[in-house]
Amino acid sequence: MRVSNLLVPTLREVPAEAEVVSHQLLLRAGFMRKAAAGIYTLLPLAWRVISKIERIIREEMDKQGGQEILMPIIQPAELWQASGRWDVYGPELFRLKDRHGRDFCLGPTHEEIITMLVKGEINSYKQLPLLLYQIQNKYRDERRPRFGLMRGREFIMKDLYSFDRDEAGLDISYQKMYEAYTNVFSRCGLRFRPVVADSGAIGGSDTHEFMVLAESGEATVLYCADEKCGYAANQERAEAVSQRTGSGGGAPGELTKVHTPGCRSVDEVTKYLNVPPEKIIKTVIYTTEKENVAAMVRGDREINEIKLYNALECVRLDLADEQTVQRVTGAPVGYAGPIGLEGIKLVADHEVMALVNAVCGANERDMHIINVNPERDIKPHLTTDIRLVKAGEPCPKCGANLLEARGIEVGQVFKLGIKYSKALSATFLDENGKAKPFVMGCYGIGVTRTMAAAVEQNYDERGIIWPVQIAPYHVIVVPVSNKDQNLMQVAESIYCDLNEAGVETIIDDRPERAGVKFNDADLVGYPVRITVGSKGLAGGQVELTLRRDGETEMVPLNNVVDAVKAKLKALGEEGI
Amino acid sequence: MRVSNLLVPTLREVPAEAEVVSHQLLLRAGFMRKAAAGIYTLLPLAWRVISKIERIIREEMDKQGGQEILMPIIQPAELWQASGRWDVYGPELFRLKDRHGRDFCLGPTHEEIITMLVKGEINSYKQLPLLLYQIQNKYRDERRPRFGLMRGREFIMKDLYSFDRDEAGLDISYQKMYEAYTNVFSRCGLRFRPVVADSGAIGGSDTHEFMVLAESGEATVLYCADEKCGYAANQERAEAVSQRTGSGGGAPGELTKVHTPGCRSVDEVTKYLNVPPEKIIKTVIYTTEKENVAAMVRGDREINEIKLYNALECVRLDLADEQTVQRVTGAPVGYAGPIGLEGIKLVADHEVMALVNAVCGANERDMHIINVNPERDIKPHLTTDIRLVKAGEPCPKCGANLLEARGIEVGQVFKLGIKYSKALSATFLDENGKAKPFVMGCYGIGVTRTMAAAVEQNYDERGIIWPVQIAPYHVIVVPVSNKDQNLMQVAESIYCDLNEAGVETIIDDRPERAGVKFNDADLVGYPVRITVGSKGLAGGQVELTLRRDGETEMVPLNNVVDAVKAKLKALGEEGI
Repeated sequence: MRVSNLLVPTLREVPAEAEVVSHQLLLRAGFMRKAAAGIYTLLPLAWRVISKIERIIREEMDKQGGQEILMPIIQPAELWQASGRWDVYGPELFRLKDRHGRDFCLGPTHEEIITMLVKGEINSYKQLPLLLYQIQNKYRDERRPRFGLMRGREFIMKDLYSFDRDEAGLDISYQKMYEAYTNVFSRCGLRFRPVVADSGAIGGSDTHEFMVLAESGEATVLYCADEKCGYAANQERAEAVSQRTGSGGGAPGELTKVHTPGCRSVDEVTKYLNVPPEKIIKTVIYTTEKENVAAMVRGDREINEIKLYNALECVRLDLADEQTVQRVTGAPVGYAGPIGLEGIKLVADHEVMALVNAVCGANERDMHIINVNPERDIKPHLTTDIRLVKAGEPCPKCGANLLEARGIEVGQVFKLGIKYSKALSATFLDENGKAKPFVMGCYGIGVTRTMAAAVEQNYDERGIIWPVQIAPYHVIVVPVSNKDQNLMQVAESIYCDLNEAGVETIIDDRPERAGVKFNDADLVGYPVRITVGSKGLAGGQVELTLRRDGETEMVPLNNVVDAVKAKLKALGEEGI
Repeated sequence: MRVSNLLVPTLREVPAEAEVVSHQLLLRAGFMRKAAAGIYTLLPLAWRVISKIERIIREEMDKQGGQEILMPIIQPAELWQASGRWDVYGPELFRLKDRHGRDFCLGPTHEEIITMLVKGEINSYKQLPLLLYQIQNKYRDERRPRFGLMRGREFIMKDLYSFDRDEAGLDISYQKMYEAYTNVFSRCGLRFRPVVADSGAIGGSDTHEFMVLAESGEATVLYCADEKCGYAANQERAEAVSQRTGSGGGAPGELTKVHTPGCRSVDEVTKYLNVPPEKIIKTVIYTTEKENVAAMVRGDREINEIKLYNALECVRLDLADEQTVQRVTGAPVGYAGPIGLEGIKLVADHEVMALVNAVCGANERDMHIINVNPERDIKPHLTTDIRLVKAGEPCPKCGANLLEARGIEVGQVFKLGIKYSKALSATFLDENGKAKPFVMGCYGIGVTRTMAAAVEQNYDERGIIWPVQIAPYHVIVVPVSNKDQNLMQVAESIYCDLNEAGVETIIDDRPERAGVKFNDADLVGYPVRITVGSKGLAGGQVELTLRRDGETEMVPLNNVVDAVKAKLKALGEEGI
């Protein structure tokens, strides 16, 4: 392909609407254009990257026995009503009516439709396991679409669904997909980490997220400093090791109300009463669709709302507003405490219950209570792990230090169990002729998101640095002047030779200055650049430059193909 | 792949809802399942066929310089309002609102979005021509979806758009696509014919449809008996050669009103007045959004409403109801005639104007007029070709006989001209720095429809007969008994050998009776079946059967791969 013919509209300026690097660079490097908020057209170079990612995914799914199908994007409401998700999914579900007034939605995910399909076609345990997948546009009507392909309203997903006869079968399917995902992201040349994750709204039990590591990642990953241990979790899910800090300090004293004028925050109370923050009980009021909740963690900790949400088994969890706090505690925000608080659910973190002579709010303006001994003084309805774990804490698996990294979630594997098969009465007959619900798993990869994550992980101030495995082209040939006929001929013949040798090569044949071509090549991020200039040619050589580190060497004309192939091979191996 | 693992749920019964062969067979052979009216899930075998068709399309588009992109399915209403199509498209457009109440539609086609894209990115004639395409789901909310994939509401299309600097450039792009389409359908192993077509609602001038020939085809194709001439047209578009039949019969007589009690139809008038039908002027009343219309053809002809619609340049054309006819002509249906008819647009076919002493309705119950000499007696507002051409008439190009065939439209190439670029102010700068609108073409292939058309063209009473080029697998190996271990081993090793030799092979390893396996193999339509039975094995042979004609031969075990390859090659060449 010739740059003169290719639709790759590079931009000099950073587009104002683009907040993150991948959004900026994919726009600037001419990979995509916006059609509406969160909705993009993928231009030729992006489509090449996507095709490569899709090919790798297909190969790895097929290798594990996956069968590719194509389900509808537009799904009848009846299915979603049957599973109960039509009502709970909320405004993120794009809904529409057909000409006869029937309700449909644009699929954000396909559990319902595939469960009904398998229900209709599979009767016997002999036909299991079954792994079905598709690669397709998905839809999510984000309230505030942003970050380009990272959080769009229309995006490409691979979704695979596994159907097994029992939990043991699901374990095997899950493990297959875990391996397949590891292979997919390795083969895409990305640095990533599978982490224990939260199962969120889809339901189910075990789940891992595959995180592409990048400083700009929206998620925090905690992982064990001991590589042999291998523990890694999304921060929202990381298990806390309860510590007994704050349990020292002598015999339990008597509950005493003290005056703490204007002290609302842990910091203020700490200073005023001269107690360490780990001896303060932080009490935060929430509301759910069922009740009000007072959640307690130590003053030096933060509440992990995902853990709290899961512990409460609620649908909605919101921080209480000022009026609610006033009504529930009888005091303004900043003075809540578990003692004497009634008509509210008390949830304590394990660490809180281990405190001795602690401090908490008195549910009264400007007042706190000291000598709180939770085991004696508090009767929580629920004591569990509800706090956020941070780097530096001990690994829950081996006790070594936890380290922190930022990641972008590009894939997730889930054990669904019988959630959908039960809701939709999808059963098969086991060896004894007994009807049993399918035991299901679901496994997603964000394909467009993977492309964006690859950019977030691989760029510098000049542009994208594509991993060679998913680069839109491997090599760009840049003749420094279009006026020198000899030079152009050499460039053209290198271009042809490389393509004939199976190296995906593009030539920048535009009548532009060399500087413009170099800038565009760096911005787009082709892994290898061959520069054909008159100086080099005088010595029978061209310049080979690696985009990743700028390493440049002169290569004799008769060795270009071999030299390029060697470099690409090395780059590919490095990448993994 | 093993049949025991593959999701290919064959059915014994013909599903009640399926009216056409492709719909019946694709359901029965386990290629697809319905998710909602006109909306289907494509199962693994269908997906393999679709993938093959898509690969062929991509190769042929790329060969002509096409660049693949991916545009959104969900399109903002603003674009459609700008082109004017939001209001005229009608109920076939799926419309929806996002959470902020903004209007969107699901793209039935992508002229607006691509024109705006190119408008934003291409400034100079130097960047033209530009050929952009995508393969993607399209949406059309059919009033009555039917015929399975032939007329669905969600379907896969390839759409390419060409952008040129002028008509000469468009001619070249059009020719490129014409060639590409010819290659695509040839390479799919289909018998087809490109025909001159009507440009319909999309607008534009030149257009050809690519018709897969099949008796069940919904369209009538007229083509010249002289292969050298090569004229072929969709019946809706076929040009009429006006004939002067009915112009004999002597000197023009005097207009005379005659009593024709109860004679409403051409047939009744013919008998009652003893005149041949070609001497009767059939007058049909229509309504458009602008006016009432009286259209006239000879009594032995039929009105071609597409031609009439185009001639009237209207948006809506409907047959007038009884009340309207009564109001406009003053008589019940059956007595309309051009003479004395006022306040209505008169449109005459060429042949009508050539009649001498003809008969027409008198706009009065039970009355007709004789001795009508249109050149003398009728002043039509428009005289043009508005009649339906039929087989047996002369070819408009060479005068030879026209023959008739039935066809299924699977592709269409259009010259759009500047319809969209003008409406959306999409211009480039020419050599003189002058802004000019892009001259556009659009080119569609119905991908799912092509699969269905392949079935309509290739089946027998036992099932589908896939052209080898797009068959889901080339060969099925059928061991006649699963109990004979030696036999199973031989079958397995043939299965492995064929796959290793690059032949896409499946093995029916189910513990079913041989008859069930044969029936399923025939129903699915694998081009070649290798039957491994004990009788043959005793002589060191297996049976090789061609699905198309049932031709069977015994092949020595050591020659299976070569024999299969030779058969597939021959089948592939036959197909084209």
